[in-house]
Amino acid sequence: MKTRDRILQTSLALFNLEGEANTTTVDIANELDISPGNLYYHFKGKDVLIAELFTQYEQGITEILNAPIDRPLSVEDNWFYLYVVFEEMYNYRFLYRNLSDLLARYPELARRFRRIVDLKHAAITAFWQTLSDAAVVSTSEEEAEALVDNMVLLLTYWLNYDHLLHEERPPALIIHKGVYQLMSMIAPYLGEQQRDFYEQVRSIYRNIIAPAAAK
Amino acid sequence: MKTRDRILQTSLALFNLEGEANTTTVDIANELDISPGNLYYHFKGKDVLIAELFTQYEQGITEILNAPIDRPLSVEDNWFYLYVVFEEMYNYRFLYRNLSDLLARYPELARRFRRIVDLKHAAITAFWQTLSDAAVVSTSEEEAEALVDNMVLLLTYWLNYDHLLHEERPPALIIHKGVYQLMSMIAPYLGEQQRDFYEQVRSIYRNIIAPAAAK
Repeated sequence: MKTRDRILQTSLALFNLEGEANTTTVDIANELDISPGNLYYHFKGKDVLIAELFTQYEQGITEILNAPIDRPLSVEDNWFYLYVVFEEMYNYRFLYRNLSDLLARYPELARRFRRIVDLKHAAITAFWQTLSDAAVVSTSEEEAEALVDNMVLLLTYWLNYDHLLHEERPPALIIHKGVYQLMSMIAPYLGEQQRDFYEQVRSIYRNIIAPAAAK
Repeated sequence: MKTRDRILQTSLALFNLEGEANTTTVDIANELDISPGNLYYHFKGKDVLIAELFTQYEQGITEILNAPIDRPLSVEDNWFYLYVVFEEMYNYRFLYRNLSDLLARYPELARRFRRIVDLKHAAITAFWQTLSDAAVVSTSEEEAEALVDNMVLLLTYWLNYDHLLHEERPPALIIHKGVYQLMSMIAPYLGEQQRDFYEQVRSIYRNIIAPAAAK
């Protein structure tokens, strides 16, 4: 691997583990066993590193959020889709941990971060639309709006919330639980389908979470 | 007002406005027009100030969360109760803005902060219990658990989410919107009562949010 890529990979790992605010470029150089001067040759300071990692995250999450779900009415496919969204966020979780502080220090990122939230909003709206078109229940526009907002909020802060309550847990457990919480928000709106839908969600939850929690 | 209280009040205002990480004790002394030495006489550093403000918040929010709702089946009373909870959080919002960073630097606070989340959990569970006892719909324990978790997450991160999307907005607008989002999570579980309940929620929302947003 090229030095430049190794620096990015190690920075990401340290930021996620120790927090971005608690990691210096010297820490990163030490971890890589290279000189601070060598690191500086590739990245002229921590803000350049953060900008580059943010761009990587932005590209990854944008691609995922713009991709359509294969079979939008299948609970499994929806589950898998949301899992992939959370997983990408988890890989760059340091961005979410101290978001306000980070955006205050790098205001240029704030606009781009809001764009990601907008993309999440659009993806969740499309997701909800497909499900509700197939459901019997009629939902007002105001109700649907409140639901989508609540789902986007959960999608944005779930990793922080789980970390606040449990500190480190296996990622698969954290992510599946997040998907479960999202799916459970939709269930009551699906009327007659609710029991069946919820049973499917619960059985996926039991089949996946139980083995993950036992590890 | 005593100097000690003025220092606390000014620190809180600056932390909320500029972020705790961006505020030094010298900034606080300058704002108060006192010498850093005088500030140090009262508080031996920023961590002591933060610990004192956290204790104030902890006492206030604990008292609110332990107080019962007067008429637990009245939408207005529930609304008012949740408003007061959010308002107390808003007054100490710097604590939520960079929570992970703050708790990493002051690990002693992490345990106490989790206790506050537990209290929120208990308050929301009691709130939901009263409403669902009166409702026709039968809800499984698993569904209720997922709902309460989602509500506590929203209660914990709503202020951050609103700040991420809108930066500064009038507090009344932010808080009423948060209560609305919480209430809209419960509405679909109330079956026959749903339409009526939701209509009440919406009319409170319209009567309060519209004037606040127009200001």
